[in-house]
Amino acid sequence: MKITKPVMLLDLGKCENNIGKMVEKAKEKNVTFRPHFKTHQSIQLGEIFKRFGIDKITVSSVEMAQYFANAGWNDITIAFPFNILEINSIKDLSDKINLNILISSQESALKLIEVTSKPLNYFVEIDTGYHRSGISAKDIKQVRKTVQILSQHNFKGFLTHSGNTYKSDSTQKILDIHHDALEKMKKLKIEFIEQYPDLISSTGDTPSCTLAEEFDDIDEIRPGNFIFFDLMQHHLGVCNLSEIAVCVACPVVDINRERNQIVIYGGGIHLSKEFILQNGNKIFGQVVKLSESVWKFPTENSYLNSLSQEHGIIQASENLINEVSIGDILGIIPVHSCMTANLMGSYRTLNNQIFYHFSNNKRN
Amino acid sequence: MKITKPVMLLDLGKCENNIGKMVEKAKEKNVTFRPHFKTHQSIQLGEIFKRFGIDKITVSSVEMAQYFANAGWNDITIAFPFNILEINSIKDLSDKINLNILISSQESALKLIEVTSKPLNYFVEIDTGYHRSGISAKDIKQVRKTVQILSQHNFKGFLTHSGNTYKSDSTQKILDIHHDALEKMKKLKIEFIEQYPDLISSTGDTPSCTLAEEFDDIDEIRPGNFIFFDLMQHHLGVCNLSEIAVCVACPVVDINRERNQIVIYGGGIHLSKEFILQNGNKIFGQVVKLSESVWKFPTENSYLNSLSQEHGIIQASENLINEVSIGDILGIIPVHSCMTANLMGSYRTLNNQIFYHFSNNKRN
Repeated sequence: MKITKPVMLLDLGKCENNIGKMVEKAKEKNVTFRPHFKTHQSIQLGEIFKRFGIDKITVSSVEMAQYFANAGWNDITIAFPFNILEINSIKDLSDKINLNILISSQESALKLIEVTSKPLNYFVEIDTGYHRSGISAKDIKQVRKTVQILSQHNFKGFLTHSGNTYKSDSTQKILDIHHDALEKMKKLKIEFIEQYPDLISSTGDTPSCTLAEEFDDIDEIRPGNFIFFDLMQHHLGVCNLSEIAVCVACPVVDINRERNQIVIYGGGIHLSKEFILQNGNKIFGQVVKLSESVWKFPTENSYLNSLSQEHGIIQASENLINEVSIGDILGIIPVHSCMTANLMGSYRTLNNQIFYHFSNNKRN
Repeated sequence: MKITKPVMLLDLGKCENNIGKMVEKAKEKNVTFRPHFKTHQSIQLGEIFKRFGIDKITVSSVEMAQYFANAGWNDITIAFPFNILEINSIKDLSDKINLNILISSQESALKLIEVTSKPLNYFVEIDTGYHRSGISAKDIKQVRKTVQILSQHNFKGFLTHSGNTYKSDSTQKILDIHHDALEKMKKLKIEFIEQYPDLISSTGDTPSCTLAEEFDDIDEIRPGNFIFFDLMQHHLGVCNLSEIAVCVACPVVDINRERNQIVIYGGGIHLSKEFILQNGNKIFGQVVKLSESVWKFPTENSYLNSLSQEHGIIQASENLINEVSIGDILGIIPVHSCMTANLMGSYRTLNNQIFYHFSNNKRN
């Protein structure tokens, strides 16, 4: 199929390899693997997980849970603070499948019991250092109070997301954050295990789950981004460039040979405006060369260093500028694959199958 | 209609007011008003422009041109460098409507004549200082060569986009950039007007078109963002907060009263991760209070200062934190309305009409 406008390419081989490694790791560490589907949001990619024996998943919204429930997934955790305004959809869905919701505070627990007496499965969200949402791991009193308030509901365990690993400047820092989160989760488990012997301790970010070897007292992992990885994960030291499973194919529409710049059709509405800083420069993507069934990293790196709505500007190496022509297609490795996939709405595999993303149809 | 998840609200009164002002200004300055539709991308909002007598528009992609052509617009400029890979769609469309394409370099002109002998209407893109694409205004030789190469096509004139106004730190700087661009466009016009007496000199960014009074020798303006404005335009001094015509209604899902933080259902996939810097802090949106048919700026400002995929974190004022509850809906004024509208895919007017955005159906 000819490419004439931005298309998100998916290397299924790399993708399956990334999934396989995480499946193996979960087995080796004796933890349940409940992958987060917010990265790919694709029913077809979900089927690959099924082939690896996965039957439990994580999502980040009620509508995403509905989407995957309709595709046959019947054990889903919504790893996002309980939204009381969607209580009816949550109740309906929990009639059909094994649904777990997330309670992030005592205040939220009080809201839940106001609106339903129907028992729901819930995790208590624990803040182990990211400070986005959840009850502080140190505030055992509030945790206990929250579980008491929800005595008519089904307490499943504790869930944390160490998103602070994304702010690390070394892989050691990621491991330190992970270790610290583990210690905090362990303390909580000790406090509650007698009363709730089946409680699950769940953790989840891709940097920790990929790099760490220590998973003591953890029962479940929920990484998501690892299926594709991206430039941000590479920048953090979490993956090799060759493990990144997606890139966006973009037409070259203009070339400025004086400034060594290439203008591509591929902007913020395709790639998202997320960037990483490298030596003070903003990097919105890295350029790869495309051939029939593979992409290759050139010996000299070229970067996307500016984005507007539909335009991307590549600061090109001498080699690239010398060999590129208007009408060529260049590949852009995205900075944050979750955001790019959501914007693009579909994937084209290297053998020309189209896989759809939830964003493709949720808007209608 | 009850709001249970993020919804983009549209204040049609503000919107019509913003359109009306620009229509008046164009009349007063005796320039053709060819609004850029890349901001709203809505057929229904397009109808409002029609009621103001507008019959020429600007878009930023071939597919957006097709979309508006199907909605009855028959004079469209694609203000994006000619993409040779879409030549067939361009030819088809130019059979049906008065279509103008953009040639950004001599190299691009050479590509065009390789692929078609069918005469197309084209503007030459001039770089007056933004350095994104286009031929440098100083390089009259290349401009002349480009027009010569395209002698079988229909030269319409020169088009510039002074996107560098967005990097200004004062309104005076915006006016200086605009003045400089006008001088450069004027020189070019003088060079070519004898041979092409009907040539059009077209300029376009919202900051210049909103603030400037000087439009000498300009024939056409193409602003887009002014229809909604946003926090970025306000930050630049281009609009008042009260003129911003859109906000995203987001459910409150958690509150951290120790950190004065509110967690909303509303993240990077709703608002985009674009931010402005204020006193070294990243601002991803400003909080407004919602009532039935209006939004209001509280006396103390509260800002969205962190975003992940679906979560937004508001750093709240004392007043806001004291009066907010889980399950409330807060409004977020977006940083960049073009990006937010593209992500949200539809608008809800304050009297509950739904207006659709092109992104809502282009993916299927």
